[in-house]
Amino acid sequence: MSKNQNVSIAVIRRLPRYYRYLSELLDRGVDKISSKNLAEIMHLTASQIRQDFNCFGGFGQQGYGYNVAALRAEIKAILGLENQLDTILIGAGNLGRAFASHLDFKSGGFNLLAVFDQNPALEGQVIGGVKVHRETQLPEFCREHKPKVAILCIPATATESIVSTLIECGITNFWNFSHYDIAVRFPGVTVENVHLGDSLMTLCYQISNKDHPVEAEY
Amino acid sequence: MSKNQNVSIAVIRRLPRYYRYLSELLDRGVDKISSKNLAEIMHLTASQIRQDFNCFGGFGQQGYGYNVAALRAEIKAILGLENQLDTILIGAGNLGRAFASHLDFKSGGFNLLAVFDQNPALEGQVIGGVKVHRETQLPEFCREHKPKVAILCIPATATESIVSTLIECGITNFWNFSHYDIAVRFPGVTVENVHLGDSLMTLCYQISNKDHPVEAEY
Repeated sequence: MSKNQNVSIAVIRRLPRYYRYLSELLDRGVDKISSKNLAEIMHLTASQIRQDFNCFGGFGQQGYGYNVAALRAEIKAILGLENQLDTILIGAGNLGRAFASHLDFKSGGFNLLAVFDQNPALEGQVIGGVKVHRETQLPEFCREHKPKVAILCIPATATESIVSTLIECGITNFWNFSHYDIAVRFPGVTVENVHLGDSLMTLCYQISNKDHPVEAEY
Repeated sequence: MSKNQNVSIAVIRRLPRYYRYLSELLDRGVDKISSKNLAEIMHLTASQIRQDFNCFGGFGQQGYGYNVAALRAEIKAILGLENQLDTILIGAGNLGRAFASHLDFKSGGFNLLAVFDQNPALEGQVIGGVKVHRETQLPEFCREHKPKVAILCIPATATESIVSTLIECGITNFWNFSHYDIAVRFPGVTVENVHLGDSLMTLCYQISNKDHPVEAEY
C-alpha cells in the first residue's frame, strides 16, 4: 500500500474528512460504497476521490466499490491514529481549558499527559483529567515523561521563548494556536497551525465579497 | 484596484497573513519594503507575492518597493475588516466562552452582539462583555438586531437544527467549529470551517510520516 511520498498537504487535509464520513457510514451499518456515492455525500467528484486514494496506492477495486470498514482502517493507519502520541498542553487559559476538557485526543491519535501554565496559582488543578504544572517544571517533566507533542494555547509574544525551551526538551511537534509562525524561526519542526484570527478575517472577506464567491471548501 | 474576481481560496487565505506581517512592520516603524524582503520574512517567494497581489490589481510599483501603510490599508479594505459585521455566538461551553472572552472580533471585522445557549441557567450571564440569552429567544433577537453572522460552538448533532433556525432568522454566514458540513446540506450559505479534530489528525499524519514530509505551510 503505502506509497505516500510527496503527497500534497491538500490531499492530507482531506483524509480526516474521509475518515469522518466513513466512520459515520460504518455507524449506520453501510458495508460497501462506490466512489460515485461517496463523492455524492461528500460533495466531491468520484475522480477526485480515486485520485486522492491513488496517492496511497489506491484502495478497493474499481467497479466493486469500497469496503467501508477496510477503507476506514487503511485511512486510520495512514493518519497514524493508533499512535497515541504523548502530548502536553501549554497555557491553561480559556482556550487551553476548552481543549483539555473537550477535545477527543485519543481519537485524534494523541495522549494528553499534562497542562502547563506560568501562573503558580493554577498548579495542581485538574483539567480534562490531567494536572496543571508550572512552566518552570517543563524540563524535569520532559526528561521523565518524554512527550512528543506540545499544544500551544498562549499569546504570540510568549511563544518564541516557550518553543525554544520545548525544543531543548526534545519536543519537535506543535499544534499551534498562537499567531506566531513557528516554522519560520525554527525550520525542521512539525507544526500544524490553527490561526483563528486569520480564519475570522477569511470569513470577513467571503462575506464582504459575496458577489465574487470563492469555491466552497468541504 | 479591486479586480478580485475568481481569486482562489488559497490566495484569500494568505491575505490575513500579509495583513499580520504588514501590521508588525508598521509597528516597528518600517515605511517601505520590497517584495524580495517581504518574501524573506514571510518565507514566500517574491514572485508568489507579486502574483498574489496581482489578483487584486497589484499594489505599489516594481522596483520602488511597497509603501507598508498603504499596502496594509488596501489589504484591510479587501478583507472588509472595516465592516464590523453584527455577530452572535451559539454555545456558551468552554470553547464558546474562550472565543467570546478572548478573540479580537473588532480587528477581524466583527461586532459580537450576544451569546446563546440552550441551558436556561446561563441566561443573563455576561461573557466577553455580552449577555447570554436562551436559544428560544433567537427569532425575537434576530428580528430586532438583524445579526449577519453566527459562530457555532456546539456539537455536530445540534448543528443541523440550529442552522435551519438561523437561516430562517436571516443569517447566512457561519464560522463553524462543529464537525458538521453545513455547506453540504445548505448550499448557498457562506461558511468558514475550523475542524479542530481534522487539524489534530493532520498533525498526527505529519508526525507519523516524518520520512515523507509535506511542504511547510505558513
